[in-house]
Amino acid sequence: MIIGPTEKFLQEVNNTDKNDERAEIPREVLSKFGELGAFGALVPPEYEGAGLNNSQMAKLAEIVGAYDLGLGVVMGAHQSIGYKGILLYGSEEQKKKYLPDLASGRKFAAFCLTEPSSGSDANSIRSTAVKSADGSHYVLNGGKIFISNGGFADVFTVFAQTPIKQADGSTKNKIPASNLIGQEGEGFKVAMNILNNGRFGIPAAMTGAMKFCIQKTIEHVTQRTQFGKKLEEFGDVQEKVAMMLARHYATESLVYMLAANMDSGVMDYQIEAAAAKVFASECAWTVCDDAIQLYGGMGFMRESQLERVLRDLRIFRIFEGANDVMRLFVSLTGMQHAGKHLAQVAKEIKSGGIATLLSELTKRVGGGNLGGSSSELVDPSLKDAAAKLDACMMEFGKTVEKLLIKHKKGIIDRQYELARVANAFINIYAMAVTLSRCTYSHKHKLSSAGHETKIANYFVEIASRDAMSALKVAQNGHDAEQALIGSVAKEVLGNGGLVQKHPIDI
Amino acid sequence: MIIGPTEKFLQEVNNTDKNDERAEIPREVLSKFGELGAFGALVPPEYEGAGLNNSQMAKLAEIVGAYDLGLGVVMGAHQSIGYKGILLYGSEEQKKKYLPDLASGRKFAAFCLTEPSSGSDANSIRSTAVKSADGSHYVLNGGKIFISNGGFADVFTVFAQTPIKQADGSTKNKIPASNLIGQEGEGFKVAMNILNNGRFGIPAAMTGAMKFCIQKTIEHVTQRTQFGKKLEEFGDVQEKVAMMLARHYATESLVYMLAANMDSGVMDYQIEAAAAKVFASECAWTVCDDAIQLYGGMGFMRESQLERVLRDLRIFRIFEGANDVMRLFVSLTGMQHAGKHLAQVAKEIKSGGIATLLSELTKRVGGGNLGGSSSELVDPSLKDAAAKLDACMMEFGKTVEKLLIKHKKGIIDRQYELARVANAFINIYAMAVTLSRCTYSHKHKLSSAGHETKIANYFVEIASRDAMSALKVAQNGHDAEQALIGSVAKEVLGNGGLVQKHPIDI
Repeated sequence: MIIGPTEKFLQEVNNTDKNDERAEIPREVLSKFGELGAFGALVPPEYEGAGLNNSQMAKLAEIVGAYDLGLGVVMGAHQSIGYKGILLYGSEEQKKKYLPDLASGRKFAAFCLTEPSSGSDANSIRSTAVKSADGSHYVLNGGKIFISNGGFADVFTVFAQTPIKQADGSTKNKIPASNLIGQEGEGFKVAMNILNNGRFGIPAAMTGAMKFCIQKTIEHVTQRTQFGKKLEEFGDVQEKVAMMLARHYATESLVYMLAANMDSGVMDYQIEAAAAKVFASECAWTVCDDAIQLYGGMGFMRESQLERVLRDLRIFRIFEGANDVMRLFVSLTGMQHAGKHLAQVAKEIKSGGIATLLSELTKRVGGGNLGGSSSELVDPSLKDAAAKLDACMMEFGKTVEKLLIKHKKGIIDRQYELARVANAFINIYAMAVTLSRCTYSHKHKLSSAGHETKIANYFVEIASRDAMSALKVAQNGHDAEQALIGSVAKEVLGNGGLVQKHPIDI
Repeated sequence: MIIGPTEKFLQEVNNTDKNDERAEIPREVLSKFGELGAFGALVPPEYEGAGLNNSQMAKLAEIVGAYDLGLGVVMGAHQSIGYKGILLYGSEEQKKKYLPDLASGRKFAAFCLTEPSSGSDANSIRSTAVKSADGSHYVLNGGKIFISNGGFADVFTVFAQTPIKQADGSTKNKIPASNLIGQEGEGFKVAMNILNNGRFGIPAAMTGAMKFCIQKTIEHVTQRTQFGKKLEEFGDVQEKVAMMLARHYATESLVYMLAANMDSGVMDYQIEAAAAKVFASECAWTVCDDAIQLYGGMGFMRESQLERVLRDLRIFRIFEGANDVMRLFVSLTGMQHAGKHLAQVAKEIKSGGIATLLSELTKRVGGGNLGGSSSELVDPSLKDAAAKLDACMMEFGKTVEKLLIKHKKGIIDRQYELARVANAFINIYAMAVTLSRCTYSHKHKLSSAGHETKIANYFVEIASRDAMSALKVAQNGHDAEQALIGSVAKEVLGNGGLVQKHPIDI
């Protein structure tokens, strides 16, 4: 395995603080990292890759995330999206030509999708690729922005519209026609599949970052004395620490459930990947923010290293699918299944209608190799938590049903409700995998099983309360509140600035 | 007024981005700032100050907070704490000697309280000041950290223990005995009064920072198109914008109510100042974070200026009273009044007991020059909101009573409950001043009054829901959850690291 040498490299060769200060990772450091195989994790050995499966890749991303999120971005932009198109959809010739240099880190790849006028709405890109009369090459025109690794990459996966207004994937400049990845007109599908496929790398890196923050926190609160007590003795500190542990445990469960599912051949994981991305990046942000708060003034200083982690973490809630957009994706895609059966659902308010969605949800959370998840399958120590999860799932079904009956296709524009349904789904999914993993630990008689039960029970307590509260607000709809939101926002946006006078001018 | 010239200076002379890049504000820029009078805002003209009152000072801090939080810290460290001791407690000789140079910015002041082993627990400082045998000077020993302006200041207010184990305030080195501020043994009181007195400067700066973020957001969401629509048309975007506006409006109301109360001679404002500090710094953090999220990838870039504001904002939740500690201070001090009457409260569960605390709370939120706050006094357009506030106040009284009866003096260690009581108090206080200010706008027939009613109603809707939910959790106590928190935290802290095995190693 390359995990051990990679960790050693991160401790002894790579200097995260220096990289941060210089806003650059030295090329020779990247080369050494490449020699370990870390730039070709999922690439088969015949193309000079490390041949890892997704679970091992997740572990690698976790280790890198724990030491250097900047390096994690270089690594992710390179292999999770940069050359992923060649790996997934490339022809044999393309793979032979590009993968060996890329997998070994002799060359770097970048992913060019976003444009000045096209961010979350990736389908609206304007760059064009026009085939020459003799069919030998494409002429690429347009502008791309936010290209991670763009400053030093050698190989670029570029998305552009072909004249028939379809998207394709190809590489830059006067470009040989043979550089087309997949078929013309399938570019958008390719882009989305690359993003879906690479998305679990982010939650994996987030678990590493959380672990780092937790370890720093443990060191601090067990040493620091104020008001005559160690910080660890204060209830407020314990609550922050327990919440950090619960968030980390749930995220770790999500990541390795997802990776294991992908390894076992599950193809339909786009909702889970999006949910994991949102959950993990929000949790890591909060965990690091809490760690800084526990450090006090020292947390704001470079020496604590925590302020760097918080700076680095901010972008993870935005890139590879902005969390707000991912939430809408999660709820709309999840509700699609129920929506397809809308007429039927309307007829079966009391029983069958719920089943449609619940079976979908149950299928989604029940799979994987970490054990079953439904309430009868959990370890007895988790029975109460499983009952809370069941209640949330029941309420979730009821909520979705009510919303579909009330708004029908108009649900697509009810972002107030959709965001809350998504938050509930994400919490429910996280609870399910958490209970599933903890049950697995009991089944295998791990010495930590009792401890894990406490974490899992605590997490479910908090997450189920949040999910229930989100579902109730979504069900209720709070029309008066939504009207206020729309009206307040419009008056200020229409005015181009605050409407009220300053108190001191009155 | 110095507001206009100061704003012009901030736009035309001071270069915030350059200051940030160099991690330094050029001395000549500081000098020009001083010439405007901004470094001696509250100092009377006879000592070369601008002679502003607290409301005007708040406006000044707001303007600076909107343009450059780094400069705001220099300014606050200098006058809100650095030389505030001389202004409040100095002898006439001390004032004459120090204030003219400090108020004009020819010299700079710093406040030296925190030590390596003494942060929030300010009473535990170890630095000593020993008087010489002839009584002519003090010898100061010890180490101080986190001294804002410490790198370039000329005058230092230093807190140290005198041999009889009491605190005093004085200035550095072999120090003439005449440099003692106030009396020996009163240093802790002096320090706390300086901090209380200067604390409203932070919420004032926060309103400026929020206004900046809101203005940037308005520019962006009214211009940017995705999925065929302007961002401003999406419900999710409108909700974020409305929440920003509500947070800003409530904070602005808190700040100017507090400043006006101080100007009108109210002396007992320590709880309000602490509540405003917590509320404002949390709101500004969230408002800026939301603005970045709405900007997407561009929000993470320097050009947006928002990432700088977020970096600068982080410390405001920590310094001048860490928010966690301030919350405990708010709830413990607030409950003290009720606690004093504990025996009586226990007897009068149904009626009189509540009155004790409610009258205290009502007294606290009802004062000021922005109008009354109780439910009969608000504008008719705010009647429903006032009823929600009344319900929260009633629940607050019930909660405090229950907790005092249950835990008696032991309440001091119930941080789980105390933090939630504080959050409820802060929300209640913010609702009260918001309704009060909005009523004032109606009374004076401001053209924005209708708009303000919407903001106030929206804010009360959210804040009352949060307050009620916090109170219910505090009342319930959630013993099982608290036991889990303690146990999970202790097992990991005792282990010095995570207890569970990594999923991939199982």
